[in-house]
Amino acid sequence: MRKEYLMTPGPTPVPPSVLAAEGSPMIHHRAPVYSEIFARVIEDLKYVFQTKNDVITFAASGTGAMESAVVNCFSKGDKVVVAYNGKFGQRFAQLGNAYELDVIELSYEWNQVVKISDIADALAEHGDSIKGVFITHSETSSGVLNDIKAAGELLRDHPAILIVDSITGIGAVECKTDEWGLDVVMSGSQKGLMMPPGLACVAVSDKAWAATERSDLPKFYFSWAKARKALKGKDPQTPFTPAVSLIVALSEALRLMREEGIEQIIQRHALLAKAMRSGVVALGLRLYAPPEGRGNAVTPVVAPDGFDGEAIVKHMRSEYGITLVGGQDHLKGKVFRLGHLGYCDKFAIITTLSGLE
Amino acid sequence: MRKEYLMTPGPTPVPPSVLAAEGSPMIHHRAPVYSEIFARVIEDLKYVFQTKNDVITFAASGTGAMESAVVNCFSKGDKVVVAYNGKFGQRFAQLGNAYELDVIELSYEWNQVVKISDIADALAEHGDSIKGVFITHSETSSGVLNDIKAAGELLRDHPAILIVDSITGIGAVECKTDEWGLDVVMSGSQKGLMMPPGLACVAVSDKAWAATERSDLPKFYFSWAKARKALKGKDPQTPFTPAVSLIVALSEALRLMREEGIEQIIQRHALLAKAMRSGVVALGLRLYAPPEGRGNAVTPVVAPDGFDGEAIVKHMRSEYGITLVGGQDHLKGKVFRLGHLGYCDKFAIITTLSGLE
Repeated sequence: MRKEYLMTPGPTPVPPSVLAAEGSPMIHHRAPVYSEIFARVIEDLKYVFQTKNDVITFAASGTGAMESAVVNCFSKGDKVVVAYNGKFGQRFAQLGNAYELDVIELSYEWNQVVKISDIADALAEHGDSIKGVFITHSETSSGVLNDIKAAGELLRDHPAILIVDSITGIGAVECKTDEWGLDVVMSGSQKGLMMPPGLACVAVSDKAWAATERSDLPKFYFSWAKARKALKGKDPQTPFTPAVSLIVALSEALRLMREEGIEQIIQRHALLAKAMRSGVVALGLRLYAPPEGRGNAVTPVVAPDGFDGEAIVKHMRSEYGITLVGGQDHLKGKVFRLGHLGYCDKFAIITTLSGLE
Repeated sequence: MRKEYLMTPGPTPVPPSVLAAEGSPMIHHRAPVYSEIFARVIEDLKYVFQTKNDVITFAASGTGAMESAVVNCFSKGDKVVVAYNGKFGQRFAQLGNAYELDVIELSYEWNQVVKISDIADALAEHGDSIKGVFITHSETSSGVLNDIKAAGELLRDHPAILIVDSITGIGAVECKTDEWGLDVVMSGSQKGLMMPPGLACVAVSDKAWAATERSDLPKFYFSWAKARKALKGKDPQTPFTPAVSLIVALSEALRLMREEGIEQIIQRHALLAKAMRSGVVALGLRLYAPPEGRGNAVTPVVAPDGFDGEAIVKHMRSEYGITLVGGQDHLKGKVFRLGHLGYCDKFAIITTLSGLE
């Protein structure tokens, strides 16, 4: 007998009542019973995203939501800034290049935070020709937290829209979409929402909707206009068949989140992250992310001299049933990452640290 | 107390063991336990699709798979033929137009089968300038079955690739992908695969892979090249986070399908469809689809004079707990549709006919 512990930055463990909801008998997505559930999901997502903006859902992974921001807000040749310090932030640059945007890349070491002043410099240099700024909130590959609040302030009076990948941020670190002036914010289901992967959500501000009017990039499945039309119908719907069982599960996950309260959820994550970091340091290990930008979702740890990060991950899984993840790209073997978001409590932290010790 | 009966052409009822698999605790998609499941899923999908071709999976609805065929196989301005007799076949034309292909539309009344000779005429007229032909196998909106075997024969020695939407076909009607020379065949999970919606699969032939080399349309999430690279790695993977719980559920659904056998599954569906049609006719109702092209998946019934199709759907649901669907677009109110595919047996047919009577 061995119990399994999932300590990765997505997928995260799923609460039993959410699993039960997911495994309940199938219902039809155009029947009233589904419409009621979906309407509640949309309202609860607004609560979690702290926004009054429209929230769109896609049957897709987070990358689909990222692509949707590119194809809905821009046109070929549009100048955009992508500021990144990790694998997922860099994906915005790859997406921009795939759709032939004119991408200004501000790239940082993975253990540095994005300097908002560099974005300000780019805006000063290129003026209104910059149509959008992309930034990652909580970078999953590096554990670094970027200052999206400052980015929001910077862009509040600039015509460019601010696009935030908060896939690993929403539900783990504070993200005040409206108060901070974030135009496009996306999340994936398998993170702070305590869900299996397969759903992605995007909150879209009026400023971003205005940008979509000018966009001429081709789109269909990821069309926000189609999504909004279906959302604003008599009963809220999606233009294409939704992932029904995941939406039903999400309604239960969001009910749990409402019950706990978004502020309390963020505080819990802050405490868990602090505990994990303290424990890691107490074990004589070194944290990868810099003190000025550590998120609550994931703690990357530098593999000690003479140890391979991948071997540590493998050993933790095979010996103790604790699933971590290794480093990505150039950090492969050099770090291992401990996830602690979503359905995670203090005993999960103790278990992980205990195995690690 | 009221039992609910789902008699729609997708989502279809999900077997209890598949629901249980879906609701099992979360695992990580880069862990060995997932790789084993995913490898088996890919092999079992090949069995169900009756192909040796690569099968790609997406966390998306069927429309995502349809879009993937357009963006991976073609370039702006490419001449393609879209032959359609229903809402979903027409979607290929909309997709082609969204990506600025040069679409030759062969459109038919929804209660007619596509004439393969018309496609032959188009090929004769335009020759090798035609790069692709799109056709729907089992049209969900009309219940009509098109002769994709004949389409495969027609295109076998033509450079154009044949793209078949068999979303409502796979697992319900015969679809011999390799034997019939079908280049691109797609399915959605919530149909004959007896699964919740949220996954789409595409089988891609060598001829279609060759076409992808020439395609210059922008793509990222739906890139087949990225999917193949991940699939052909040491362990089969997807480039982006998969819908883990749906893949785990699919492994169980496919195990059930292997156990029953694909030929037996098709025979069961043929019998159920025949029973449903006979019962409907015996009740004095009129079938919408023509005798020469009736599929096994869905039976659209003409609403009798003085009856509104939507009202029948509503009454069946509220009075008997039997969920049907109405007609789409211009058939709204004029027909109602009975789905009988996937996890469906003879007693479900009797229940539905009994309620209808």
